[in-house]
Amino acid sequence: MRAEILAVGSELLTPLRSDTNALWLTERLLEIGIEVGARTTVADDAGLLESAFRVALQRADVVIATGGLGPTEDDLTREAAAAALGRGLERDARLLLALEARFESFGRVMAPVNAKQADLIVGGRSLPNPRGSAPGMQVEQDGRLLFLLPGPPVEMQPMFRDQARPVLLARAGGSLLRTRVLKLASVSESDVEQAVAPFYKTFTNPRTTILSAPGQVELHLVAQGRSESELEERLEQLAAGLRERLPGRIYSEDGRELQEVVAGLFLERGATLALAESCTGGLVSSRLTAVPGASRFLERALVTYSNASKIQHLGIAAALIESHGAVSAEVASAMAAGVRRAASTDYGAAITGIAGPDGGSPEKPVGLVFLALSGPTGERVRRVQFPGDRERVRHQSAQALLELMRRALLGLSE
Amino acid sequence: MRAEILAVGSELLTPLRSDTNALWLTERLLEIGIEVGARTTVADDAGLLESAFRVALQRADVVIATGGLGPTEDDLTREAAAAALGRGLERDARLLLALEARFESFGRVMAPVNAKQADLIVGGRSLPNPRGSAPGMQVEQDGRLLFLLPGPPVEMQPMFRDQARPVLLARAGGSLLRTRVLKLASVSESDVEQAVAPFYKTFTNPRTTILSAPGQVELHLVAQGRSESELEERLEQLAAGLRERLPGRIYSEDGRELQEVVAGLFLERGATLALAESCTGGLVSSRLTAVPGASRFLERALVTYSNASKIQHLGIAAALIESHGAVSAEVASAMAAGVRRAASTDYGAAITGIAGPDGGSPEKPVGLVFLALSGPTGERVRRVQFPGDRERVRHQSAQALLELMRRALLGLSE
Repeated sequence: MRAEILAVGSELLTPLRSDTNALWLTERLLEIGIEVGARTTVADDAGLLESAFRVALQRADVVIATGGLGPTEDDLTREAAAAALGRGLERDARLLLALEARFESFGRVMAPVNAKQADLIVGGRSLPNPRGSAPGMQVEQDGRLLFLLPGPPVEMQPMFRDQARPVLLARAGGSLLRTRVLKLASVSESDVEQAVAPFYKTFTNPRTTILSAPGQVELHLVAQGRSESELEERLEQLAAGLRERLPGRIYSEDGRELQEVVAGLFLERGATLALAESCTGGLVSSRLTAVPGASRFLERALVTYSNASKIQHLGIAAALIESHGAVSAEVASAMAAGVRRAASTDYGAAITGIAGPDGGSPEKPVGLVFLALSGPTGERVRRVQFPGDRERVRHQSAQALLELMRRALLGLSE
Repeated sequence: MRAEILAVGSELLTPLRSDTNALWLTERLLEIGIEVGARTTVADDAGLLESAFRVALQRADVVIATGGLGPTEDDLTREAAAAALGRGLERDARLLLALEARFESFGRVMAPVNAKQADLIVGGRSLPNPRGSAPGMQVEQDGRLLFLLPGPPVEMQPMFRDQARPVLLARAGGSLLRTRVLKLASVSESDVEQAVAPFYKTFTNPRTTILSAPGQVELHLVAQGRSESELEERLEQLAAGLRERLPGRIYSEDGRELQEVVAGLFLERGATLALAESCTGGLVSSRLTAVPGASRFLERALVTYSNASKIQHLGIAAALIESHGAVSAEVASAMAAGVRRAASTDYGAAITGIAGPDGGSPEKPVGLVFLALSGPTGERVRRVQFPGDRERVRHQSAQALLELMRRALLGLSE
């Protein structure tokens, strides 16, 4: 079974808006084993729209259109779909009453222009829209299914889930798709590839794709099956093997980001943390404090950009900075110990480095970063050299410090 | 003149990738006065692709396709476009030599499969690709223009700019579009609308659209004209009137974000800053330190989440926190003054508030935030009540503090 998606609206063809519905529908259709052959965004133009519907209905088993069901002159989806199917539109008396009642419930009288939202393609079935005034529609012709859904995601998504999905699931023959994403931080894509490719390539179901971003590698496992339990079993069998080959490296299999996982570990253990950041400028702190409940473990975070602030708040000796430089293993270590002592927390973590674009030297180039963690079981210090611009260096540094904390909290080696 | 865009590639119809080329091309075409009627993403399927080309060439004056020009079996763009045009493909001897030379320059022998990248649609013109092995193509038929460009943005974008754009610009009759974005922080969309809608609605060129996001309102001015100087004149005439009606409220007209503008003001004036953040948890600091050169004005930023850290680093009296609460105008004011004193900077800025989801009370609900700025000309303190969840409250708080700083540095009223 193959589907096509039509996103209707001239505003989607300007830089101001982009079409998120089509992406969302692509994912939902894949989950029930329906591939999308083409996805078209069409302007509010009667001729273009009719042509787009005609072509899509020739090529695909299922066509889903979103948008263009409103009451204005620009809303042409109903008319264009009817023309492409060679059918007429007829006003549905029950729909009209329901529309009028909806307006009345807001204390308003329905404008005559709204009446066209009660128009149904002859032979079609109306799909109720509990969250808006535009009902959807389902039409069948020559074994092909057409769904017209409204454009606002808050209306479209539940209508797809509750009304279109069950119909499609029955047609698609019950083949389901499910994705599990395994996330790793501060590892290289090639190291991950080397460790697991020979293994995952022995599986054709699930299929595995490796994606990487600065400071992060993700393994996307896509399983196909006929039941939820089959999907779960297939995914778990592959994931177990991947875990074995990447011991302790996978930080999330449930969609959570690194800062959520680290915050969760601190909260579970009832451990407290204080941060001292230099080159990341509060990035680690702002990521951790984005997690609800962060105030229960993060006692303070000091962005000690200047040497004076390192001396004053962290109790670092001026001589230490002078002899080793602010960007050094010694100062990183003293920052972590200093903030831990000042805050009386279980852990103190620190970053100092050169994010660029200025401030680098042959001995200490842009991208050089020192991380330190001081905790109940001792100290960990790491020296790293990151590629990329200021933003990438800062982001990778934050990832690396969060991963250092995760490993320490779990008792894993560096 | 109307265009259609075809993005080719099955990977664009999975959740793993999204098509950024089509959006980029839509913007570039609008700039030269060409509207996009439809934008289609098509799977690597010969039949679908040929149909998509045929339909697009019937409807549009210009068709631009990206992707599917590689050497593999899945790369079907050349073949499909040729079939839709009813023309053949012929191997171009010069292109073949150039391809072989390219491989040789990397010290490799070209695989036979690559030879198909030297195939040209009969009557078409090859477009050199300085950054990759896949050349593009330009074909004309019945007054319609077809461009085939490679998929990787780093190859496609310069090829469009240098080779397709000049041809299209000449055809489009020299009508140009340019957008200017006026940004405002910490104001409501309806206040902006009320202040300027009666004025901007008297202009049909440029057209104005208001967009809003948490903590930010943007006025998008789109001008149409026949020369750069006409565009500039039209935009400036409208922008001048908007500035007059929103005195001191527009912080950027050149694409810069609020933190860049504020950082620029500190750097220009040679003024220094220290921050004390509570509910924003380092968000203001991480935004300001993302700007290169931030270390020249930001001396330190203390995320004093706990009361102990407020007392210890900012010199706040425990009694003040006890009598007014940590979230109060008094504590915000003492935090700003305290961090300024500790750091010996020109300015000290502070935020304390309740980001949620927990910690609210009837007197001090979630979203209540106090901002303070202590500087050479005195003190500013603001109380704000933000709607939304933790992320929105934090983001709006950061915007409000940055805007407070901008206004103070410019000598504007609160």
